[in-house]
Amino acid sequence: MQPNTRLDLDRIRQAQQEISPLFRDTPQFQSPTLGELLGCELVIKLETANPIGCFKGRGTEVAMARLARSLGPKAAVCASAGNLGQALAYSGRSRGIDVVVIAGRGANPGKIERIRRLGGLVELVEGDIETARERAREIAGGGNAFLIEDSENLDTCEGAATIGLELVEGAGRIDTVLLALGGGALATGVGHVMKTLSPATEIVCIQPKGAPALALSWRARSVVTTESTDTIADGVAGRFPIPEVLDDLIALADHVPLVEEASIVEGMRLLYRHAALVTEPSAALGIAAMLEEPERYRGKRVATVICGSNVLPERFSAWMRD
Amino acid sequence: MQPNTRLDLDRIRQAQQEISPLFRDTPQFQSPTLGELLGCELVIKLETANPIGCFKGRGTEVAMARLARSLGPKAAVCASAGNLGQALAYSGRSRGIDVVVIAGRGANPGKIERIRRLGGLVELVEGDIETARERAREIAGGGNAFLIEDSENLDTCEGAATIGLELVEGAGRIDTVLLALGGGALATGVGHVMKTLSPATEIVCIQPKGAPALALSWRARSVVTTESTDTIADGVAGRFPIPEVLDDLIALADHVPLVEEASIVEGMRLLYRHAALVTEPSAALGIAAMLEEPERYRGKRVATVICGSNVLPERFSAWMRD
Repeated sequence: MQPNTRLDLDRIRQAQQEISPLFRDTPQFQSPTLGELLGCELVIKLETANPIGCFKGRGTEVAMARLARSLGPKAAVCASAGNLGQALAYSGRSRGIDVVVIAGRGANPGKIERIRRLGGLVELVEGDIETARERAREIAGGGNAFLIEDSENLDTCEGAATIGLELVEGAGRIDTVLLALGGGALATGVGHVMKTLSPATEIVCIQPKGAPALALSWRARSVVTTESTDTIADGVAGRFPIPEVLDDLIALADHVPLVEEASIVEGMRLLYRHAALVTEPSAALGIAAMLEEPERYRGKRVATVICGSNVLPERFSAWMRD
Repeated sequence: MQPNTRLDLDRIRQAQQEISPLFRDTPQFQSPTLGELLGCELVIKLETANPIGCFKGRGTEVAMARLARSLGPKAAVCASAGNLGQALAYSGRSRGIDVVVIAGRGANPGKIERIRRLGGLVELVEGDIETARERAREIAGGGNAFLIEDSENLDTCEGAATIGLELVEGAGRIDTVLLALGGGALATGVGHVMKTLSPATEIVCIQPKGAPALALSWRARSVVTTESTDTIADGVAGRFPIPEVLDDLIALADHVPLVEEASIVEGMRLLYRHAALVTEPSAALGIAAMLEEPERYRGKRVATVICGSNVLPERFSAWMRD
């Protein structure tokens, strides 16, 4: 029995076929050292060992495979703090589709440089990701480019959902899955699959206290926006939740904690010290949640999705050192 | 047509079936950033995203699967600087086989601690890995434990060889493959598969100048031993090459360079900065070789096996900083 969301298990299974092997069947393994430290059996689902260093290739592969087969324009546009842009540039180029990425001037420069290297055209705008989204809509409005709105576009959710299929098929029983909550594609995608195929699994979706819009919306059961964001986790920093995504999240999430910046840094440190992983802050939200509510997870078998490793090395080294 | 070595392609294909999915089908992906910097198309084969942080689970899985089915003792012993010991402890425990690991007192303490956590019994001896090997032989000589001699034992070579099968099947054309050369299992395993299924691929096996015994033996076409080793690459530091392994290496390797310690550190830095990877020194030998002979690899499609990430975080951070 599938939960009542926009997502569909058959389409998710089809999506799996449209994703390059580069982004599929990613490592999922128990980390005995880190698990012992956190008092649980910890399963790491690693989404960083691919050409773009994050999970978003799953969604853009699905979207671009479908666009390539359609009669639509052979160009795509998105607003992105970086990771979606890299993913779209990669998936577009490998199918002969031109990609334009709109980003705010404050975006992570390492990510912007990689988008360009992957063949994407980057347009920087004043303001944050929400301003960039408006500009992307404007470009797509002309009809010459397909708009990828992360999380609103179902392909991005169903692409991310394939992570859930892999966990269900290969990672054994999972009591709790920990998911970074940004726009919502990862959380609702994986959440939909787990609630369908492993209904006993608890779905925990985490935002930073400094970018809480979707978490506050989930708690209020209606859209809450914020004036600004203030977090090192640039990959999940949105201000305007999408109503359809919020509805899906309400149907799927069991717990939506907000975590401190210090916990995110400590989570990154633990992943570095005990699992030899370089992660971007968003990828450490799961460990941060465990550090803030250890009792909730004790003795359980907990899976956390390491969703990205796109971080400036200088910043990462500084966080490890402080 | 297979090269004339102790290895066999059919047995390697069988080995693939005996390895837990945790250690198989590891990520293999192009790194555009690092490739551009090195002037080639760089394919990374990542062997670190598993519970033991290195490739050696492939060999121990094969060995322990076969031991579990045999009439032999349900105990195994090995000498190990750490990675083989972790792998054997893991593969033994999951099959109810007791594991004893012999290591020199100078071995990496992080690795020793992990062997114990994985359920292995550790015995420390005065001296280096060669002294530890003697003690392991002594224990096995009593008949109550199966001896795993890394690289001499064919299971360890044929287990490692499955990396080659995956590269041939999924990574596209490869002009050159770069392999860390320690005891020789990785080099001869992957070398045998490539020379059989992709004969045009050049096999480059790399040792540090500070632990050159097998490289010097390959050059001399007969066993050369050394008095001592002096390298940060503890995973490949042996002094007494095994004659049968040397014969296989002579049949398979095209080029066996010796690299400087500074190049190894620089290789680790590049992997950290441009591919977000934490690696142990042995895993950076391939990049080190490219840094020392850039012309040799320019414009080619080069695969390097990232064979381990078991490094003390403090030491790694210090290398990144210096």
